[in-house]
Amino acid sequence: MTARDIQLDDQGRLRHFLTTEGLPRELLERMLDTASSFTGVIEKSIKTVPLLRGRTVINLFFEASTRTRTTFELAAKRLSADVLNIDVGTSATVKGESLLDMLRNLEAMQCDMFVVRHADSGAAHFIAEHVGNDLAIVNAGDGRHAHPTQAMLDMYTIRRHKRAFEPLRVAIVGDILHSRVARSQIHALNALGAGEVRVVGPRTLLPRHVDRLGVQVYHDITAGLRDVDVIITLRLQRERMQGALLPSEQEYYQLYGITQERLALAKPDAIVMHPGPINRGVEIESAVADGPQSVILNQVTNGIAVRMAVMSMCLEGRGASVQEGG
Amino acid sequence: MTARDIQLDDQGRLRHFLTTEGLPRELLERMLDTASSFTGVIEKSIKTVPLLRGRTVINLFFEASTRTRTTFELAAKRLSADVLNIDVGTSATVKGESLLDMLRNLEAMQCDMFVVRHADSGAAHFIAEHVGNDLAIVNAGDGRHAHPTQAMLDMYTIRRHKRAFEPLRVAIVGDILHSRVARSQIHALNALGAGEVRVVGPRTLLPRHVDRLGVQVYHDITAGLRDVDVIITLRLQRERMQGALLPSEQEYYQLYGITQERLALAKPDAIVMHPGPINRGVEIESAVADGPQSVILNQVTNGIAVRMAVMSMCLEGRGASVQEGG
Amino acid sequence: MTARDIQLDDQGRLRHFLTTEGLPRELLERMLDTASSFTGVIEKSIKTVPLLRGRTVINLFFEASTRTRTTFELAAKRLSADVLNIDVGTSATVKGESLLDMLRNLEAMQCDMFVVRHADSGAAHFIAEHVGNDLAIVNAGDGRHAHPTQAMLDMYTIRRHKRAFEPLRVAIVGDILHSRVARSQIHALNALGAGEVRVVGPRTLLPRHVDRLGVQVYHDITAGLRDVDVIITLRLQRERMQGALLPSEQEYYQLYGITQERLALAKPDAIVMHPGPINRGVEIESAVADGPQSVILNQVTNGIAVRMAVMSMCLEGRGASVQEGG
Repeated sequence: MTARDIQLDDQGRLRHFLTTEGLPRELLERMLDTASSFTGVIEKSIKTVPLLRGRTVINLFFEASTRTRTTFELAAKRLSADVLNIDVGTSATVKGESLLDMLRNLEAMQCDMFVVRHADSGAAHFIAEHVGNDLAIVNAGDGRHAHPTQAMLDMYTIRRHKRAFEPLRVAIVGDILHSRVARSQIHALNALGAGEVRVVGPRTLLPRHVDRLGVQVYHDITAGLRDVDVIITLRLQRERMQGALLPSEQEYYQLYGITQERLALAKPDAIVMHPGPINRGVEIESAVADGPQSVILNQVTNGIAVRMAVMSMCLEGRGASVQEGG
Repeated sequence: MTARDIQLDDQGRLRHFLTTEGLPRELLERMLDTASSFTGVIEKSIKTVPLLRGRTVINLFFEASTRTRTTFELAAKRLSADVLNIDVGTSATVKGESLLDMLRNLEAMQCDMFVVRHADSGAAHFIAEHVGNDLAIVNAGDGRHAHPTQAMLDMYTIRRHKRAFEPLRVAIVGDILHSRVARSQIHALNALGAGEVRVVGPRTLLPRHVDRLGVQVYHDITAGLRDVDVIITLRLQRERMQGALLPSEQEYYQLYGITQERLALAKPDAIVMHPGPINRGVEIESAVADGPQSVILNQVTNGIAVRMAVMSMCLEGRGASVQEGG
Repeated sequence: MTARDIQLDDQGRLRHFLTTEGLPRELLERMLDTASSFTGVIEKSIKTVPLLRGRTVINLFFEASTRTRTTFELAAKRLSADVLNIDVGTSATVKGESLLDMLRNLEAMQCDMFVVRHADSGAAHFIAEHVGNDLAIVNAGDGRHAHPTQAMLDMYTIRRHKRAFEPLRVAIVGDILHSRVARSQIHALNALGAGEVRVVGPRTLLPRHVDRLGVQVYHDITAGLRDVDVIITLRLQRERMQGALLPSEQEYYQLYGITQERLALAKPDAIVMHPGPINRGVEIESAVADGPQSVILNQVTNGIAVRMAVMSMCLEGRGASVQEGG
């Protein structure tokens, strides 16, 4: 079964959101449109809508991430859902058979959605395959594989600033190899028709055969940034340093850091993005991160609206008949 | 003061739920009936009812149990109560006088219910004795003493599958000695008029004088399971192994594990229960746990409805006059 | 910019609540009046009002305090706000530039209020200076500097029992030097017109030039308690013992402990207060803490109403035009 099969129901509606890969353009566009309607809501002083009242969302985090959990919790509460946080930890007890037993137990509590974060690639997909029809799974990051809500909030941010994707040149800069965000962004950008997607980084931080994903590969930052409309900076996981993949933070910054000087290579109205939290002076110069072309904080704001859109799309249409009958 | 006295008010209504021991049959039956009405609610897509809107429930856990806390949190939220989780830990600071000071402080915050989990037998009872009339205490497990909501969800599960208790033969299998669940089940089964209650286990894992609780004692599993309608498997606490009470998990499974072969000794329509989480290949064979006669996941589902029933019964009638006056 | 400037808007309304210092008497009195209206609410069985429905409050605790967090969480929920708890810990990662990045991120999630607890004096003030106009900051204790909601619940408790502040003699007893509560109380008592404010303690536990705060200084407890209307006992931080500031708990109790004998020095209708948790036999004798003149548990109850007042005052008037337009 492909990811596409499991993510969509018979009528092509979103059942789970595990990856941006393989999803049709119309569905991604509808997600952006739905997020757009919620952006109006969260700018009001009363930021809640009753769309998911009486629904229960469980944040099932096998890997700690206060930041990501907070955004999902906020999104769910703004939809009036009840939210439970379960921090599982990646202990031996939740592997293999025990993980399935744990899922069956949580499922028996008749919740509506699990937001899953896991250090292993494919974990959210595995869970989606093993739960019943009543439960929606949203991937909040699984290993190196995917982080689709982050990618879609990036798409939303690009569309808010640039309107159409077709004419855009987008450069993704940094550690593509270990980045679940980059994979999800590349699939989404291609599905949404972006004119040109570039990846820019050292050979050691690019996946083998990355060009097969539909991207132009640049090792030289000067060439990579020339005339782009959007610069997406990736976060450098500092633990990579120890793996001899990178000589030092200083050298990385010298070779790939986004400085004001390099920003000038892009189009004058280019925007600069970063999934956060930023390492100032490593991936990006403070003057750029805090400058007029940075949309990094807009990304955070947009993340709430996009997660509201994902959650409501995954649950819409479910249980309606029972509800009418009840 | 007996447990019965403290659990009921002048009109015989439930004030606290500390133990199934000594409670009248009608009250336990009313609890099952109330749970039944909530089962309809939680099968809808909008699973909340406004019964406890504006009420505050504090999950006061002196012993960590994500699983139990989650079910109480879900039950409270489905009744529209506000829930606060306080994980106290069993530190020296919450013993003796300090515990009382802590209780008085929480009580002064004018909450409506404490759901208490504690490693010491009698802790919930102690707390119920020391709080004022406005506060209801629900025992979510105290040492080896009682786990009454687990027992009542088991009763509810039995009634859903078997209707009347009178004709039933029920076998409780395993470590009765250390099980708070078993004690609560035995009292409830007897109060509800179960035809025959058997306990099945090795001498080292049965309490002295267990027959005085109104049960038939079996050491041999073949005899113990013959012609029963309900098999309740207890969880084997693995730490017991070290106490020389049990030779090994393998030997326990050989002597008392519920296998398909042994299940065949029971009536053909017998159901198999377990409070979870199960140790596959220790207390129970996977083919039985996942088989057609297993109702283990139904127990989990029923746990929410039963806890909703307990919470609403403990609070009904309280504060009504103030509310009307306000 | 002074604390007063940053705490009030152009029309003199409360924007942040960081300290009692410099706030006008009318505003403090309005806070007490507002709390008084909420006291009626929380004595009902339905304890919630919809004042902050759709608003989001983040409890941002850089220093753990279950007790304080619980009271703010309860207060926010009784105002129908959504509450998120973020326990930051005082790690290196949240200092300096990183703290600002974290704040900007949380701010971008469009919440309405941060309740901040921090081990460093001035932290809440620093945060208030660095967030935008849409966000209110409430200080839940910062180092030795201030704990203004605790001080205001003390003022509320005094007014409930004594009505007018003018004729009162108030003695604050104990470790004034390290107490954020004492500083906030002294400013509030003086602003509210208390007749005489005394501080009573050993030289080693009084700040230099404490008399400049507008208090009478007593080292002798017998003189210090004579004819007072209110005795405020401070909590003795046991870690101070190691600093050689205090010889021993026993000696402290002998010199400054509030015993029944010493209580008799005060007016016959004097009340005894303590911010909790109390150290019995160190700052206070059990017979006094539990006696008829103690209002220690009333303080806890009043804390909810006062925090509701602070939260609603900080948010009232904000975003109203957007809300109407929406």
